[in-house]
Amino acid sequence: MKKHNFSAGPCILPEEVLKKASDSIINFNQDNLSLIEISHRSKPFVDVMDKAQKLVRELLNIPNGYSVLFLQGGASLEFLMVPLNLLKEKGKSAYLNTGTWAKKAIAEAENFGHVEVLGDSSEKNYNYIPKGYTITNDFDYFHCTSNNTIYGTQIKDFPSCPTLMVCDMSSDIFSRKIDVSQFDLIYAGAQKNMGPAGTTLVIVKDEILGKTGRNIPTMLDYNTHISKGSMFNTPPVFSIYVSMLTMQWLKDNGGIDWVERINQQKANLLYHEIDRNPLFEGTANKEDRSNMNVTFLINDKSKEDKFNKICEEAGINGLKGHRSVGGYRASMYNALPLESVQVLVGLMQKLANN
Amino acid sequence: MKKHNFSAGPCILPEEVLKKASDSIINFNQDNLSLIEISHRSKPFVDVMDKAQKLVRELLNIPNGYSVLFLQGGASLEFLMVPLNLLKEKGKSAYLNTGTWAKKAIAEAENFGHVEVLGDSSEKNYNYIPKGYTITNDFDYFHCTSNNTIYGTQIKDFPSCPTLMVCDMSSDIFSRKIDVSQFDLIYAGAQKNMGPAGTTLVIVKDEILGKTGRNIPTMLDYNTHISKGSMFNTPPVFSIYVSMLTMQWLKDNGGIDWVERINQQKANLLYHEIDRNPLFEGTANKEDRSNMNVTFLINDKSKEDKFNKICEEAGINGLKGHRSVGGYRASMYNALPLESVQVLVGLMQKLANN
Repeated sequence: MKKHNFSAGPCILPEEVLKKASDSIINFNQDNLSLIEISHRSKPFVDVMDKAQKLVRELLNIPNGYSVLFLQGGASLEFLMVPLNLLKEKGKSAYLNTGTWAKKAIAEAENFGHVEVLGDSSEKNYNYIPKGYTITNDFDYFHCTSNNTIYGTQIKDFPSCPTLMVCDMSSDIFSRKIDVSQFDLIYAGAQKNMGPAGTTLVIVKDEILGKTGRNIPTMLDYNTHISKGSMFNTPPVFSIYVSMLTMQWLKDNGGIDWVERINQQKANLLYHEIDRNPLFEGTANKEDRSNMNVTFLINDKSKEDKFNKICEEAGINGLKGHRSVGGYRASMYNALPLESVQVLVGLMQKLANN
Repeated sequence: MKKHNFSAGPCILPEEVLKKASDSIINFNQDNLSLIEISHRSKPFVDVMDKAQKLVRELLNIPNGYSVLFLQGGASLEFLMVPLNLLKEKGKSAYLNTGTWAKKAIAEAENFGHVEVLGDSSEKNYNYIPKGYTITNDFDYFHCTSNNTIYGTQIKDFPSCPTLMVCDMSSDIFSRKIDVSQFDLIYAGAQKNMGPAGTTLVIVKDEILGKTGRNIPTMLDYNTHISKGSMFNTPPVFSIYVSMLTMQWLKDNGGIDWVERINQQKANLLYHEIDRNPLFEGTANKEDRSNMNVTFLINDKSKEDKFNKICEEAGINGLKGHRSVGGYRASMYNALPLESVQVLVGLMQKLANN
C-alpha cells in the first residue's frame, strides 16, 4: 500500500524522482557506472551541478549578482557561517525569535558578537509571528526564519529592511513565490522541498561578502565555495543530483506558480476542516498559519487512540506532532498530493461522525 | 559492458551494495517508503545509524573510550575542527607535510595557532614519506595523512608519539589493519573505501576533548555530536546508509584481514608489472608505495595514445594521473576486483609486446 507521507522532514519526494534516483545508483547516464562511484570532476557530474544551479536560478527568478551554492552541514552550520561572514568585529545583528531553529541561530550568533532580538513569540509557545518591530541600519544584518516546522507558523510578509536581510528558508523554499531581491542571503537544508538530507542550498549576494575584517576558516567562507562553484571539496553528489531531479520535476509541472497554487489548496482544505470540525483545534495564530506544517490538537482526548488507529490503517505516516506542541502535525510539502490531504480530512470527518 | 573503475574517489563500491542502495530509494525496510523520505528519528533510520557505528567498532576493533561519529563537510571541515577542538590557546601543533591534503590541513591549523612541520617531502614532489623526525610532548597534537592519493604514497609504520596523534585516513581507512589505540583522533571522508560522498567518519578518544579553553561553535564541537549520537541535526541519511551496507559487505567477506590480503595481492601484481615492464616507471619511493593509489608514467611518450586507447576499449575508467604528477594513477580501493588489475596488467604487457 502506498503511504500518505506527512513526515516533517526528511519528507516526501516525487515518485518519478525516486525512480530516477534509484536507477542512477545502478547505471548513471547510460555509462555503466553508478552515480556514486564516479569522480565529482567528471563531465557527467559537473553537468549535474551546473543544471542544479541553473534550476535554482530559474525557479526562483534570481537576479544577477547572486551566487547559488550547494554546501554541507545543514542549516545548523549556516547558523555560524552567517555571523562569521556578515557580522563585523564589534558589530551587532538583529534576529527574530520564532521557534526552536531561530533560537539555535541566535545562540550561535552570540558566539561572535552582540545580538538583539527584535521580536520573540516564545511566551506563547511560538504560536504567532512577531510583528511591529523596526529594523534599523545600525545592525550588520537582520535574520529571520520563514517557516517554523514545529509550531506551524510562517512569515507571510517579510519586513522592510534597511540592512542586510538573511533568511533560513529550510522548510518552505520552493513552496511559494519569493522576491529574492528582498534578501541578501537565503539558506535552506535540502530535506523538505528540495531533495534528500545532505546538502544545503545557499543563495548569497556576492557584494555583501568579505567586509567584516574577520579571518574566516576556508571551509566556512562563502567566497571559498563561490570561487570553486561548490566544488572546493568533494560535494555530496547524491543529494545534489536528487535535488536537481526534484527541481526539474517542479519546473516540468509548472514551477513555483503551480506548486504555490496546489499548496494553497491543500492548506485551505485542511485548515477549513480544523476550523469546521469541533473535534479539532489549530495551534497557530490564524494569520500566521503555515502552508507547509499544519499543527492541530484533538479536543476530545478520548478519541485520540481511535484517530491514530484509523490514520495508521489508511497508510498515513508522520502525523505525530512535535513533543513541544503535542497533538498532530501534517506536513504538506510540495510532493504531497492533494489526495493525501483529502484522505486525512476524510478521516477527521469520519472521527467526528462516529 | 561492466567498467573497470580505477577512479580516485568518489570510487568503486561493491555491486551488491549498489543494488541494495538502489532498492532502498524505492522501498526501504519493506515499509513502502523511500529511505530518503522518512524521518531520521524514525526507528528504521535510528537502527541504520546504530548498526553503522557498531560495524565501524567491530571492523576496526576499537577499544573502549572512543566515540564513532558520522559528520558532514568532508576532511576539509575536519582540517579546522581538529585545531579548534585540540589546540590550546597559545598552544602549538606538529604536522607532517606529505602532499596536497596535508598542506591544506596545515593551512587551516595556522589560523588557530603555531604549527611546526616536522617532515616535508614537497621538494621531491611528495614522492616519499618523511621519516626520522622526533615528536616531542610540548605539541598539543601531531597530525599526519596516512595515504596520499595524488602522489601514491602511504605511511607504513606510524611514528611513536608522546602527544595526541591525529590521522587523516580518508583514502585508506578499512583497507588494512590499524591499531586504533595508537591514535587519539582519526577522520576520513567516506568516498573511498566506506561509501558515497557526503559523510565523514570521525573516531575520537573522548577524554582528549574539552581541554583547550576555546569557545567552540556548536556544530564544530565534537562533544555536540557525541552527546547526540551524530543526530544533533539531520544527518546525511543516504550516505550513512550506504556506508553501513559497504561495511556489512566487508564484514561478510572476511573483514579487514581479508581485504588487506586482497589489496596486497592487487598492489603486488601492479607494482611488479611496473618494475618489470621497461615501458613503465613508478613515481613513488618504493618503500612508501601506496596499496590504494598506484602512480606511474609511460617512459615512451609515443605509446601514450595507444595505451589510452586500449584502456578505454577494455572499459577501464579513471586511470588518468592527477595533473600535479601526470601519467597514470590506478586507484585500487577495496571494491575493485583483482580481475580489474589483471586486465590492466594484461594491457601493459600487450603495449610492451607490440
